[in-house]
Parts: sequence; C-alpha cells; structure tokens
Amino acid sequence: MRIVIGIAGGTASGKTTVAERLFDAFGNDAVMLSHDYYYKPHDDLSLEERSHLNYDHPDSLDTALMIEHIKELKKGNAIMHPTYDFTTHSRNPVSQRMESAKIIIVEGILIYTDSKLCKLCDVKLFVDAAADVRFIRRLTRDVNERGRTMQSVIDQYLTTVKPMHEQFVEPSKAKADLIIPQGGHNEIAINMIIDGIKKKLN
Amino acid sequence: MRIVIGIAGGTASGKTTVAERLFDAFGNDAVMLSHDYYYKPHDDLSLEERSHLNYDHPDSLDTALMIEHIKELKKGNAIMHPTYDFTTHSRNPVSQRMESAKIIIVEGILIYTDSKLCKLCDVKLFVDAAADVRFIRRLTRDVNERGRTMQSVIDQYLTTVKPMHEQFVEPSKAKADLIIPQGGHNEIAINMIIDGIKKKLN
Repeated sequence: MRIVIGIAGGTASGKTTVAERLFDAFGNDAVMLSHDYYYKPHDDLSLEERSHLNYDHPDSLDTALMIEHIKELKKGNAIMHPTYDFTTHSRNPVSQRMESAKIIIVEGILIYTDSKLCKLCDVKLFVDAAADVRFIRRLTRDVNERGRTMQSVIDQYLTTVKPMHEQFVEPSKAKADLIIPQGGHNEIAINMIIDGIKKKLN
Repeated sequence: MRIVIGIAGGTASGKTTVAERLFDAFGNDAVMLSHDYYYKPHDDLSLEERSHLNYDHPDSLDTALMIEHIKELKKGNAIMHPTYDFTTHSRNPVSQRMESAKIIIVEGILIYTDSKLCKLCDVKLFVDAAADVRFIRRLTRDVNERGRTMQSVIDQYLTTVKPMHEQFVEPSKAKADLIIPQGGHNEIAINMIIDGIKKKLN
C-alpha cells in the first residue's frame, strides 16, 4: 500500500517545515516530490525576461508531467524528475532519479488547484497562517538569506504573490481534508498526523 | 494517561457528528462532556423571559463548574454533572453521574473562548463549515425536527447566533490545533484523528 500525502499552503505558511517533519518521521519509507521541480523551462527567453514571469500562476508549472510521475511512484516505479535552478530561472539539464516509497509526499502552494492532482492525493493537508505573518516570514527570509532588497520583496508580493494567492491558493483550501493552523510549529497537529499515517501504514 | 480532546465549531458545523464519531470509536475508553450541560439556571425568570436570553454568549454558561469537572475526570474521579432542559430553558433537578475514562471529549461552540478551558484540552479540534451551509443545516433541523417556524429560526440566527459566532466562535478558531473542514462528513480527517489518538493511547 502506498499513500500520497499532499501538503499545500500559502508562501511562508510553514508548508515546507510540515513536509520535512513528515519526511523525517518516515525515514526510508518516504519520498518528497516538490511542485517547484516542475517549473516550465523558458529557454526561448532571456534571463531578464524570465525573471519577470509570474511564477505564482498554475500555468508556470508542468503539472501534467508531475501527475504522470506520481502515478508511476504509486505503481512502485522509480522516476526521473526535473529540477529547477531558481538563480537562473531555468530547468537544470540533468534530471534526478527518485525511487518509490510507501509514503509519497507531494508539496507545493498550487497542488490543489489541479483536480487530477487532487484526486491522486489520499490525504490533503493545508498549512495555514495569517497573511501578515506569512509576508513577514517571507520578507525576513528573502532579505536575510537570499540577499533581496526589501522593496523588491514588497513589489513581487503585491504584483504576483498576493493576487495569485487570493485567486488560486486560498480557494484551493476548500479541497483540503485537514487544515493545520499556526504554520509549521504546531507540534500537536504534526505529531497527530504522523501517528495517523503510521497507523494507516500498518 | 488521560487525554482531553476539545471539539468546537459553529452551530450546525458538524461538531456533534465528529464528537460522536470519536466517542463511538473509543467505546468504553471515552466519555463525552457537553458545554450545553452547564447552561446557567435562571429560576428567578419566567419561561417567557428565559426564552429570550442570549444562549450563544459565553456568560450564559457555568464554565468554571465545567473546568472543575474536567479536572476531576483527569484525576480519574467520577463527577455529577448538571443537565439542561431546552424545552423549559432550565437546569434539570437531577444531576448525572459520569465516570472517568482514558479519553475525555469536551464539546461546545464556545469552549475555546475560555483560556483555562483551552489549557485543559490536550488536543483542540475545530470543525469548520461555510456560514451559509451551517445556516441551511440549522434551519432544516429546527423546522423539520424541532417544530420551529422558518421566521423564528431566521430571527434568532440574525439576533444572537450570527453576532455571537462572529464575536466569539470564529476568533476562537485561532486556538485550535487542527481544523476539520467540510464538517462532520470528512471521513479522511476523522479517521486520521481517531488513528492518531489511538496511537497516543498505546
């Protein structure tokens, strides 16, 4: 039996923290597939042009390929998934091999906007946090860890991140089976979900 | 080890369904205490006066007594809890004995509005459903099963239920550890929570 667990949530909601906690809890029994790996390549555009694309819209991702890969993993087959270089906004030339596992974690802000991808997820989690808290986390991370200016983070947030969140991410919360409030530091929820999945496996 | 599980949510959110599903899943290992048992008696008022009190405000409940009872149950002691007669809006003359159990389910729309009660809950669940869906369920139930008129349900909803929900119930959602969307028919969430609690018990 293989279980596909979806983990969605807005930018800087704590989604990745929850995904990593689950991934760590299941050790060799889990693999984690990120929607980010499937950003479409735009080799026809310049770096300058590519850096201005809307990366928060579902059309920026090759979700059909991700769905094929999840189906293969569910059958027990290994896949070769693409990887993406955020510094050059381009797909890396070399794909990455991923074996199948009992627990297939699928994470991304937009995974519940695709109904076929939704149907593949046996358990759909949504990590929730207030919009201002999410913005503050993103600002802090991008300025301190990624060398971005405060103004560029604000501009990107208001131009694409926030409108795409409201158009796609927030409505897709209605597809979730369980909502985890207070982001990635909600120990009670995370431990209960890990225990629930362990019970499902046995 | 005894675990206190809080189940809150708006009127007709599916809260009782979730509470009963948990209660059934744990058989003799669970007891269920409803905040409704603790409505304050108003023996000084007439039935007519009592029927116009605001039963959706936290002050209508003797939460201090409920907290004492939960503490006793947590120690393994039996309690004698009050019971309430909704037809006469008064406390029944006879209390009900409740033994302690491993799982103590505490349910009510307002349980997370009291910080001491919150602290007693080891796991805080909140059952969520859209306001219009909740109103439709309440209307259908009260008209079909409780002989109420449509207009009286609407009047009560707009006068006390909705404003109290917005003032007390909705903000208390922020205290929850896990939010169960789609009300009481969310099999995936309910089963996962039951399995997570079973794992906690062993």
